[in-house]
Amino acid sequence: MHASLAIGIDLGGTFIKGGLIDADGAVLQRDSVETQANRGAEHVIARIADLVRRLAGEHRGHLAAVGVGAPGPMSHTAGVIYAAPNLPGWKNVPLRDLLSRATGVPCEIENDANAAAYGEYRAGAGRQVRDLVFLTLGTGIGGGVVIGGQLVRGKFDNAGEVGHMIVEPDGRPCPCGQAGCLERYASARAIGVRVTEAIRAGAKSALQARVVAGEEPDAADVQRAADAGDPVCRRIWDDACRYLALACCNLRHLLNPELIVLGGGLINAGAALLSCVQTHFDRVCWKIAPDAPQIVLATLGTDAGIIGAAALARESAP
Amino acid sequence: MHASLAIGIDLGGTFIKGGLIDADGAVLQRDSVETQANRGAEHVIARIADLVRRLAGEHRGHLAAVGVGAPGPMSHTAGVIYAAPNLPGWKNVPLRDLLSRATGVPCEIENDANAAAYGEYRAGAGRQVRDLVFLTLGTGIGGGVVIGGQLVRGKFDNAGEVGHMIVEPDGRPCPCGQAGCLERYASARAIGVRVTEAIRAGAKSALQARVVAGEEPDAADVQRAADAGDPVCRRIWDDACRYLALACCNLRHLLNPELIVLGGGLINAGAALLSCVQTHFDRVCWKIAPDAPQIVLATLGTDAGIIGAAALARESAP
Repeated sequence: MHASLAIGIDLGGTFIKGGLIDADGAVLQRDSVETQANRGAEHVIARIADLVRRLAGEHRGHLAAVGVGAPGPMSHTAGVIYAAPNLPGWKNVPLRDLLSRATGVPCEIENDANAAAYGEYRAGAGRQVRDLVFLTLGTGIGGGVVIGGQLVRGKFDNAGEVGHMIVEPDGRPCPCGQAGCLERYASARAIGVRVTEAIRAGAKSALQARVVAGEEPDAADVQRAADAGDPVCRRIWDDACRYLALACCNLRHLLNPELIVLGGGLINAGAALLSCVQTHFDRVCWKIAPDAPQIVLATLGTDAGIIGAAALARESAP
Repeated sequence: MHASLAIGIDLGGTFIKGGLIDADGAVLQRDSVETQANRGAEHVIARIADLVRRLAGEHRGHLAAVGVGAPGPMSHTAGVIYAAPNLPGWKNVPLRDLLSRATGVPCEIENDANAAAYGEYRAGAGRQVRDLVFLTLGTGIGGGVVIGGQLVRGKFDNAGEVGHMIVEPDGRPCPCGQAGCLERYASARAIGVRVTEAIRAGAKSALQARVVAGEEPDAADVQRAADAGDPVCRRIWDDACRYLALACCNLRHLLNPELIVLGGGLINAGAALLSCVQTHFDRVCWKIAPDAPQIVLATLGTDAGIIGAAALARESAP
């Protein structure tokens, strides 16, 4: 049906990472190059094409497709990156067609969080299920929805923006223009920001000296301090988990997925994150029907994006 | 592909309503009987089978399927009604198989809000789109999700429970065990309850005399009083619209549907509801991407359920 191999690309502002992926989602080869984003879109596209050639190597003839996971705003359907905060000067770049021409292989582009969601579905935490919601907890919060084995893109290719679900009406302002977005409470960045704010407002904390020195603690610092009993860090870590639990509860009622997969840098906290979210979930969400999803950690790490991008591209290749 | 006609049944606690539905979702015949729920499941199923025979009439040979929309908790997949607040004594009734046997026609059962969602998708407000979310605003709030033309049921057949999405953390307690469910702020019932509470707590209102007399105003009373300038009714009506807008905003980000369809008794308020929800939506939801769904009123009224149940049953018939 499909040629067996595809290449997945993760297009970041600093590095372009790529992998040669087989039909089971296994990464056969891995390579990366600097993006050199400041040299413009044409230059970057040529670098992606070079990376594709290197990764394909002798398998060139068995290559079905190339899939690129990229930051938005972008459109899978149009094949266009409208803008990208990490890629200065990219405006309405028709990446799909330019890259297809440069490589001679059918290319697809996909929102990076959607690609990671699909990767976890095909080869990671979700490989036994058909329905899942994926949340990537990093600087921001992205996400992706898979229903009946299909990635949900929505009318404007903008589904899965879990980080901008409003979990606190009239809550913390978000650069997106809304107030109370999940991302403002439960991203790795937000946790550090909230601890910094609390300390500046006078709360005592083990992280005080660092904040006074102008540093912003990261989520790992906060989690370690919380674990050691620091009350401010405890409260803010716990609050982040509570908001994640509220989001999971709403996902349960709307889509009733089998699985909710948590990914991104924040899951380095492991059980300290998962058990805290689960405890809040069991407290805030109903018990009248045994329809709860399993909440689990992602298993593919940063490979999820290249595996998912490759799979999506292969499956839509002619 | 499918035989052209199907029968849709709306199984309520007081009446069983039915319709003979063609492949375009048009209602060719309509009929109803009392449920006589107190006489037990066997009796009610015989009454449904009689209604099916009457509705089919001379078209008996062209009948592809019978679809029943029923209140939950129930399972489409198992074909079982686990319990039904309006049908005393119904416990784990295998309605699908019993009714198939009684009628000699393939039967399917579906959550009533899901059936109505699918009816609006096939023949109502959503007939031009492939993706929509439907909310039915009545005594409670139910809902249904259609993606890519498919009804989303979820792992445990419990998707679309929009009324139990939490829109206010630690908010008003809900009989479901959660706090802050949408249903506690924006159902027709909740609006009347909140006005009653406010008046009992001392707020001045045109509806005061009725509340003192022990009546609970309904949403239509509240909307009329709000329209006439009553401040309490205005505030609570507006607040209901605001919570509906927050829910619509979250649906936009998660699923990015083309359409959000509002149905149920509350939409008798027409523009007083729709424009109020739209105004709040435009205020609370982002403007950074032009990916907003249209928010519209349902067009099929109480026919949505029988049209949807018939269509779902016909499409899954062998």
